[in-house]
Amino acid sequence: MPVQLIETTPSAYSYPLLIKHLLHTPLAHAPDQEIVYRDSVRYTYRTLQQRIGRLANALAALGVEPGHTVAMMDWDSHRYLECFFAVPMMGAVLQTVNVRLTAEQMLYTLNHARADVVLVNSEFFPLLQAMAERLESVKTFVLIHGDHENPEKMQAPVPFAGEYEELLAAAATDYDFPDFDENAKATTFYTTGTTGLPKGVYFSHRQLVMHTMGAATGLGTAPVQGRLHRDDVYMPITPMFHVHAWGLPYVATMLGLKQVYPGRYQPEVLLRLKARERVTFSHCVPTILHMLLNHALARETDLSGWKVMIGGSALPQAMAVAALEKGIDVFTGYGMSETCPILSVAHLPTAKLQAPLAEQAALRARTGLPLPLVDLRIVDAEMRPQPHDGQAVGELVVRSPWLTQGYLKDPASAEELWGGGYLHTADIGNIDANGSIQITDRIKDVIKTGGEWTSSLQLEDIIGQHPAVHEVAVIGVRDEKWGERPLALVVLKPEMDGQVTEHAIRNHAAHLAETLGVSRYGVLMQVSFVKTLARTSIGKINKRFMRENLEAAKAAQP
Amino acid sequence: MPVQLIETTPSAYSYPLLIKHLLHTPLAHAPDQEIVYRDSVRYTYRTLQQRIGRLANALAALGVEPGHTVAMMDWDSHRYLECFFAVPMMGAVLQTVNVRLTAEQMLYTLNHARADVVLVNSEFFPLLQAMAERLESVKTFVLIHGDHENPEKMQAPVPFAGEYEELLAAAATDYDFPDFDENAKATTFYTTGTTGLPKGVYFSHRQLVMHTMGAATGLGTAPVQGRLHRDDVYMPITPMFHVHAWGLPYVATMLGLKQVYPGRYQPEVLLRLKARERVTFSHCVPTILHMLLNHALARETDLSGWKVMIGGSALPQAMAVAALEKGIDVFTGYGMSETCPILSVAHLPTAKLQAPLAEQAALRARTGLPLPLVDLRIVDAEMRPQPHDGQAVGELVVRSPWLTQGYLKDPASAEELWGGGYLHTADIGNIDANGSIQITDRIKDVIKTGGEWTSSLQLEDIIGQHPAVHEVAVIGVRDEKWGERPLALVVLKPEMDGQVTEHAIRNHAAHLAETLGVSRYGVLMQVSFVKTLARTSIGKINKRFMRENLEAAKAAQP
Repeated sequence: MPVQLIETTPSAYSYPLLIKHLLHTPLAHAPDQEIVYRDSVRYTYRTLQQRIGRLANALAALGVEPGHTVAMMDWDSHRYLECFFAVPMMGAVLQTVNVRLTAEQMLYTLNHARADVVLVNSEFFPLLQAMAERLESVKTFVLIHGDHENPEKMQAPVPFAGEYEELLAAAATDYDFPDFDENAKATTFYTTGTTGLPKGVYFSHRQLVMHTMGAATGLGTAPVQGRLHRDDVYMPITPMFHVHAWGLPYVATMLGLKQVYPGRYQPEVLLRLKARERVTFSHCVPTILHMLLNHALARETDLSGWKVMIGGSALPQAMAVAALEKGIDVFTGYGMSETCPILSVAHLPTAKLQAPLAEQAALRARTGLPLPLVDLRIVDAEMRPQPHDGQAVGELVVRSPWLTQGYLKDPASAEELWGGGYLHTADIGNIDANGSIQITDRIKDVIKTGGEWTSSLQLEDIIGQHPAVHEVAVIGVRDEKWGERPLALVVLKPEMDGQVTEHAIRNHAAHLAETLGVSRYGVLMQVSFVKTLARTSIGKINKRFMRENLEAAKAAQP
Repeated sequence: MPVQLIETTPSAYSYPLLIKHLLHTPLAHAPDQEIVYRDSVRYTYRTLQQRIGRLANALAALGVEPGHTVAMMDWDSHRYLECFFAVPMMGAVLQTVNVRLTAEQMLYTLNHARADVVLVNSEFFPLLQAMAERLESVKTFVLIHGDHENPEKMQAPVPFAGEYEELLAAAATDYDFPDFDENAKATTFYTTGTTGLPKGVYFSHRQLVMHTMGAATGLGTAPVQGRLHRDDVYMPITPMFHVHAWGLPYVATMLGLKQVYPGRYQPEVLLRLKARERVTFSHCVPTILHMLLNHALARETDLSGWKVMIGGSALPQAMAVAALEKGIDVFTGYGMSETCPILSVAHLPTAKLQAPLAEQAALRARTGLPLPLVDLRIVDAEMRPQPHDGQAVGELVVRSPWLTQGYLKDPASAEELWGGGYLHTADIGNIDANGSIQITDRIKDVIKTGGEWTSSLQLEDIIGQHPAVHEVAVIGVRDEKWGERPLALVVLKPEMDGQVTEHAIRNHAAHLAETLGVSRYGVLMQVSFVKTLARTSIGKINKRFMRENLEAAKAAQP
């Protein structure tokens, strides 16, 4: 017998999960709450609603229709927030353009997404200039006046259909945002790996509403530490072009929070805004936190009580301690472009709030606990779930209502991403008995030996502790019997050259690896002394090159 | 141009919003957290998961298939919680039977819903006995042993297919709960008005998941007062048969809270469980709160810090003050059977937490602020939204992702419920500038005069203050020109009989009504002295009878 579907009376509203519905509560609870942009703009949610209406009318007048793609090139601003709502609410797709890409990469993404309209801050005229001739689908450009320019003197690289504020001023505030399929595409943007072309991910209205609810629930129900609530003041310090600023602008808007948009990230502006507007909730990458902590202004700014969620890369524990010493409630959030992004948050158990800062830092730097509805597993190569014992490692694979359902026009990569019906994060980690996740490696950094995964980073750590070793890279090399076996490419300290054998390093490290439980296949490890390690153009150790050019890498003999 | 729907790669998991997905986080975060039933059962979420699997296997062995209806007749228990999950997760429909109905009403609901299976606590054998011969669709009965019985001596009124615990013990723990359409019916139950047959409402998996997320977000993001978080201990004191115990068992489970199920509500048991298990979050009707506050055991029980959400009927302010004096964080939640149920919650603004208790009580007794995604409006008879000024009144109409889409097999009532595309609550109220809703009347208690609504309750209040008046009922009577005009049926105090005229009462009250702004149509009010007011069988003033039997009501002359 099939399941019984609910019957719907003709007049009933079936309530598609559309972004426009996020606006009901802020307009009911907090119509006079403020939205602030740097030193220049301050308005209420009532005005936000009117400006969303104006923007939709202005874009419609420029020919934007449902299904069109509207690309945004701006720093974090109230305008960006308006686009987060108005563009998808019209039924169009918002492309959030990573303004830190090269002109060539950006050109690729705009052409690949077939952007119809581009809104561009005049500060990006040089980028636009470099692309203008080769943009294939863009029919309309809208100018946004940057903060630090003399508009009269700017040379427009393209003909603009109008200027953002002038267009809004001329438009009506009422726009009848229609209902449509909740699976309509709302946003798209590109993720850039270390190799290959940027890949387009995309999210539907339903997915963004569910992410908003999931993030609000997960962050809101934290017992004490890191919890988000309706008295918070929110300021993003992860760009809005980057996975919707982690989705927090949607969360903050739904909850009717005071919001502060800082424009281009400048430490002194961020710190001043933090203090002046009494910001209590932000998120950023470790590099930005480091910059803020070490800025001169940080010494005279009260940062206590500032909840700062860290993502993008691992939170170094020393940085966590430094932040905690300033009274910052720092903790990790985990996710990626493909996941909208938040999957888990490292909230501390209440009992640990009195623990020494170093112990807290270790917990706050973990990958955390999954949000509601997130089905997150660690699995082996055959997709078998691994135990939650803090030891067993596996790839993190995930299902949730807010994961990209593919890569734009790239079905092969999409199928690879979703192999076995779970989204593959390509992160390797363990889960402890309390459900707390810890990522240890990227999958490309693990070596699969005899069906088990060994962390190359842990082997490197062990070998790096040998007094003769200057630096080391451990990669997996093909092995008929074992699948892969570890190979350590070791650069010795100049003064140790000739003082130690490959065999001695191997014995020392392999023994330690087994004793510490890092790998029982340590015995299979080989060591080759090399003169240098291959590096990428930005100076990172390039393991991919080493794996693909094994002989050349080994040939870098001392 | 149509909207662009997102493309889904074949292997991607589209994540239907199914009740089974609420279990991911508790099993990840809190597998060892406890679920307690009175003094007799205490187990972990791990066991809950296993028992959900056992129950599904046991029901499947009894022939339960997707689409079947499984009715539950039990007090609030861990078994009920298991049914909340296992039955819908199989694709079957859980009918939560109101065990306080008469046997005739209950029989009607079981036949009307075409229940296939009934699980029944032996304490309800007399009810079952009275229905057994006339149950039309039930093929299978499952026995639940009550707490206070000698099972050997109970006379089974029907042949039972098995006993709940024995069936579970014999079943396997693993059940492969399938994916299916998120619009599958998950639960159904009946709402009983003062007249007419019970009406069946029903909720899909998607609706219950969205209600769970909405309630968790709305309760979780409260700044201070009334907030729900992951360290809370939950105990329902609104029956699980009544609108899923306000949906909180689903919320508590998703968040991995410790949960306490009290069985049949007995004040001393509730107070003992509250103290022993350190319960921090409950919900109940005012009558139960009154009973708890006035129980002897309450004097020696520390009730401070207990968050108690009140619904079902208005929270009397004096009761709120009494609860606040005991340290109870009491506040109103608003909803109804048709709305899953929660629509709004009366959280206090942080600034008001220091206000005198009487002022707080007034705010806590309001209808509150809408949950996220709830589009709640006050509208006039032509569905025109009324201003949020705390004065203008209208009917509360609502859209949210968790409203019944009809009444079972009652299309006419379903269309009436959803007239104009909004669910009609039949409640009349106002909304102030802070978004806070205040219900003032049921729609049947307002009088529509010249297109405006006048509260009969406010007119009664005014007339009741006249020193000669013993009691009064104000109803609307048809009027060709005005639509309706108010008629006050007044019973004088015996000693005032003949001391005052109908005209004098009318003048006094009509003048006051206009002066106080209650109604500018007070001048149209008529007054009739009567000997008695018609009452219902349970002693409530029966305005419906008076309206429908106007001459008889007026004829009750003194």
